[in-house]
Amino acid sequence: MPELRKDPVVDRWVIIAPERAERPQAWLRRSGAGLPAFDEDDDSSHCPFCPGNESMTPPEVYAQRDGSRWKVRVVPNRSPALRTESPLSRRARGLFDQQSGTGAHEVIIETPQHGLSLGQLSPADLAAVLAAWQGRMRDLARDERLRCALLFKNSGVAAGATLSHAHSQLVALPLVPPELRQELEGAREHYARKERCVYCDVIAQELEAKERVVHEGERFVSLAPWASCSPFETWILPREHQSTFEDAQPADLGALAQELRVLLRKIDVALEQPSLNLFLHTAPLREHALPWYHWHLTVKPVVASVGGFEWGSGSFINPTPPEEAASFLRQTEVQP
Amino acid sequence: MPELRKDPVVDRWVIIAPERAERPQAWLRRSGAGLPAFDEDDDSSHCPFCPGNESMTPPEVYAQRDGSRWKVRVVPNRSPALRTESPLSRRARGLFDQQSGTGAHEVIIETPQHGLSLGQLSPADLAAVLAAWQGRMRDLARDERLRCALLFKNSGVAAGATLSHAHSQLVALPLVPPELRQELEGAREHYARKERCVYCDVIAQELEAKERVVHEGERFVSLAPWASCSPFETWILPREHQSTFEDAQPADLGALAQELRVLLRKIDVALEQPSLNLFLHTAPLREHALPWYHWHLTVKPVVASVGGFEWGSGSFINPTPPEEAASFLRQTEVQP
Repeated sequence: MPELRKDPVVDRWVIIAPERAERPQAWLRRSGAGLPAFDEDDDSSHCPFCPGNESMTPPEVYAQRDGSRWKVRVVPNRSPALRTESPLSRRARGLFDQQSGTGAHEVIIETPQHGLSLGQLSPADLAAVLAAWQGRMRDLARDERLRCALLFKNSGVAAGATLSHAHSQLVALPLVPPELRQELEGAREHYARKERCVYCDVIAQELEAKERVVHEGERFVSLAPWASCSPFETWILPREHQSTFEDAQPADLGALAQELRVLLRKIDVALEQPSLNLFLHTAPLREHALPWYHWHLTVKPVVASVGGFEWGSGSFINPTPPEEAASFLRQTEVQP
Repeated sequence: MPELRKDPVVDRWVIIAPERAERPQAWLRRSGAGLPAFDEDDDSSHCPFCPGNESMTPPEVYAQRDGSRWKVRVVPNRSPALRTESPLSRRARGLFDQQSGTGAHEVIIETPQHGLSLGQLSPADLAAVLAAWQGRMRDLARDERLRCALLFKNSGVAAGATLSHAHSQLVALPLVPPELRQELEGAREHYARKERCVYCDVIAQELEAKERVVHEGERFVSLAPWASCSPFETWILPREHQSTFEDAQPADLGALAQELRVLLRKIDVALEQPSLNLFLHTAPLREHALPWYHWHLTVKPVVASVGGFEWGSGSFINPTPPEEAASFLRQTEVQP
């Protein structure tokens, strides 16, 4: 069963998930060649996410249907990093801390059509994916053991994907992980000093300066962050203050679908369909209407690899100034 | 010129280094295909790190020679992430913080022989590389603007290397980066409560339990850490408490060369010469004999890629329990 282990020095829990393991010998195949190629799923008859192959996945926990056909489908991950069946338990191992791998790990199958990417969906179909993300988060929030839900997406081999059929993933955790915790703490400190949301401040300053704005939608704005960790990293934020993605209204999801679709299409054109990662930062589960936090979506095209400097420092060397990335994406024209 | 930018929310400075940039258009070439292949340097006549091609690098700042031939050579990075020539200056840009990219970025050419890896060097030649690391750190410590030196190594394309000739890199920073800061803070808290070094505690517990020990040398021990972030991550620590790598004695460097050589050879045999990252965590520059910190070397074979979960959470899913990795490496026999 998966478990969580705390580093004895720094405040970080790592998920040890041997069920996802290939045995040590199996690493050979991958380590020499660097990154793995996709499995043999590129033939849709073998793809577990294609219609007709539903029996290849665990039973679905959510679906949106159009008549008898599903449009979006959510299933538990076949090799989950965490499991709801694990009772929450904590123990010491001498100096070390361990807790059960209690949580959830689900896969959102974004479209029945093999070969379509998220950015290629119609605005309505993309909004249906966002509604699936939200629906699953709201449902998982009912489990009081879970403190946080992290939605993410790996698209393309270089981004860590092992299946090519468009999908995102949702991991619900019994703790608040470091990246989100640091954001919550930083934003809370700013609010304590100024009684303003730091993200609202950033949005106001960026909309005035313009130089890091990638796209301005009616309800959302896409920005290259001031201290971008990697080239072409882009945040999508709601213009109006809102701390919790689960509380977004259907009209918000529709507008977010438009904004995300524009951004993904710009990236696809500008960088020729790169591999990319996407993740959603929102308030911890069951925390609503926080005045200091502001949910946002991050899209990171994969154009460079992480090396010893990044691992050793926890910081980043970014060769592309965000002003330059934003200007390039801003000027990239896409079909509406 | 490179600059440092602080994230407006979390306590992280990012190096924006446009001199290392390929222009946005040039990312195309790389992003589609994922990772870049090595440049045309695999022919040693074009390799800037081979003897005879010394004019292809900036003038050397350090060398060890055997008669007229160099054994180890240190040069400034051709595309430095940071520069000593930049005067230290700090400024606000509205909400945002910026400082000059003051620092150093050097390349340690580990051997004149193209095609040899660090683990293939003789113990004496490997000790000479460690002495070069130490010599450069001691020299950079004289610049009071620099607070921390991070030694790291990217070996193989998947680890982020762009040249195949064996080399490591040293980045000296005007700040203490997050990974090291968090270790220093965590170790200091442990010491404040217990008056013991947490790393000394870990070593004692691990040497008793044995299950995560990879190799026990006379002065050093190699361990798979309890909360390993990635498969086969291994730490080498001095058995005796020591906070600062710069203070290691020549006999220590000799013993570390032996230990590192055993570990790298085990990894090469067990995982068939994987790409790998290596980095050294030591006390900030000019801080000596700290009772709470304990320097150590981390070796991370690259067997999986970083994805949306890791970026979004700052945590990790590791499918290989460290007990299993340690047992596999422990049982891997290598030539002395």
